[in-house]
Amino acid sequence: MKLTVVGLGPGAGLDLTGHARQALEDCDMIVGYTAYIDLIRGEFSHKELGSTPMRREVDRCRWAVEETLKGKSVAVVCSGDSGVYGMAALVYEVAQEYDPIEIEVVAGITAACGGAAVLGAPLTHDFAVISLSDLLTPWELIVRRLDCAAKGDFSIALYNPSSKSRGDYLQKACDVLLQTKSGDTVCGIVRNIGREGENGIVTTLSALRDTQVDMFTTVFIGNRSTVNLGGKMVTPRGYMQRGT
Amino acid sequence: MKLTVVGLGPGAGLDLTGHARQALEDCDMIVGYTAYIDLIRGEFSHKELGSTPMRREVDRCRWAVEETLKGKSVAVVCSGDSGVYGMAALVYEVAQEYDPIEIEVVAGITAACGGAAVLGAPLTHDFAVISLSDLLTPWELIVRRLDCAAKGDFSIALYNPSSKSRGDYLQKACDVLLQTKSGDTVCGIVRNIGREGENGIVTTLSALRDTQVDMFTTVFIGNRSTVNLGGKMVTPRGYMQRGT
Repeated sequence: MKLTVVGLGPGAGLDLTGHARQALEDCDMIVGYTAYIDLIRGEFSHKELGSTPMRREVDRCRWAVEETLKGKSVAVVCSGDSGVYGMAALVYEVAQEYDPIEIEVVAGITAACGGAAVLGAPLTHDFAVISLSDLLTPWELIVRRLDCAAKGDFSIALYNPSSKSRGDYLQKACDVLLQTKSGDTVCGIVRNIGREGENGIVTTLSALRDTQVDMFTTVFIGNRSTVNLGGKMVTPRGYMQRGT
Repeated sequence: MKLTVVGLGPGAGLDLTGHARQALEDCDMIVGYTAYIDLIRGEFSHKELGSTPMRREVDRCRWAVEETLKGKSVAVVCSGDSGVYGMAALVYEVAQEYDPIEIEVVAGITAACGGAAVLGAPLTHDFAVISLSDLLTPWELIVRRLDCAAKGDFSIALYNPSSKSRGDYLQKACDVLLQTKSGDTVCGIVRNIGREGENGIVTTLSALRDTQVDMFTTVFIGNRSTVNLGGKMVTPRGYMQRGT
C-alpha cells in the first residue's frame, strides 16, 4: 500500500512521463479533481476512479490517505506537476494526522515548461513562477513578489492570471511590473497547453496589460534580453555573445 | 525535415514524456552533449547519434540546423527541460542565420520539479529558479537575483550550485540569502536526480552554507512557511489553514 502523487503534465496522454504512466498502471485507485480525472478516464477506465470538486482539496487528500490505510495503492493526480501549485504538499500535511504511510511524488510537466515550449524558449535564463490567485495568498504578498521579480529582471510565468471574480488581476499585475519593466518587454500568452485549441501569442507588456485572458491561460513576461524572433518568444542565455 | 529540441528529464528512460519518446523515435539523427547522448544510447542506438563536448553549444546547434537543411529530421536533446538553461533558445537564435526550417520544442521535467519530488514538495507556492554559474552571467546579476528572490520570500531552486572552479559559490549565495532569510529556513539538497545514487537531504540555510556540493546537485531554499515534515521538505499552499 502506497500513496503516489502524480503530475499528469498539461494535457495527460503523451504529456505523461514513463514514471507517471507506470504509477497509474500500478495503482488500485486514482483520486483527483473532476476535470483531471476526465483527462485520463479514457486510458484508465479499468481503475477505480474517485473525483471531488474544486475547493475540496483537503477532503480529497484525506480520502486518498484513508483509502491507502485500508490497504489500497492510491494515486492522487494533478494537472501539470504534482508539486507546483499541486497536491503533493497537502498530501504530506494531511498524512501527518494518520498512521504512517509510504508517499511517493512523481513529477509532471508544469505549465511554465509546457507553455514555454509552445511560445519558443522564454525561460532559458533565471525565472520566477507566480500565481495571481488570492484565494489562499494575500494580494499584498503577490504584489511584493511581482515587484521583486521585476527588480531582479527575472523572466516570469504567471499562473491563474484570471478568473470570473478576478477579471482585472492581470491588468493590476502588469501595472506593478510596468513600474520597473519597459512596456516593450516581450511577453507571451498561451491557452489550453497540451489540450485541444492550444494557442500561443507573442506580444508586449503594454499590450498584455489591456488583454483579457481566461483561467485556462498561462502568461509569460520576458527579461531585458528576451526577443521576438519571427513570432517566437526567445530569452537568450548568452552563448551567441560568447561565440562558440 | 524538422528540428525538434527535446527535454529528456533528469535521467531520460522513464523520465521521458510520451511526446519526447515519439520525437526521438520519429527523427533520423539525435544531437547532444556527450553525457546526454550517453543517457539515451541504449534505447536509441539504431539512430544516427551526434555528440559534441561541453562549451561547444553554438557549434552543436549549427550542426543540427545544417543537418536539418540537408533534409533530415533532427532532434537536439537536453537534460531536464529543453528550455530551462537548455538549447531551445540557442536553436532559434542560430536558425536565424539560415534558410527557414520548422522548429518544435518538446518540454521535459526540469531539475526544479524532479528534485522537488525527491525532497517532498518544496515548490508548492511561488518560486524562483536561479543558476549560480557565472560562465555566461555576471556574478553581480546573480547576487541581485538572489537578493530579490529572498526579499520576495520566494522558494528558490539553485542550479549549477558548484563546480571545480567555483567551489565557494553556494556559500557566497547563502550569505546573500542570509541577509534576508532566517538561518532556520528549511532547505534541501538533491544529488543525481533520476539517476543512480539519487539522494535527497533536508537541512537548514545555516547548515547549507557550510555544506560542500558538486555539479550534479540541485539546491532548494524554502520560503517562510516551508517545514520539515519527518525528513520531507514541504511548502504549504494554505489549504490546511482554510480547512476544507
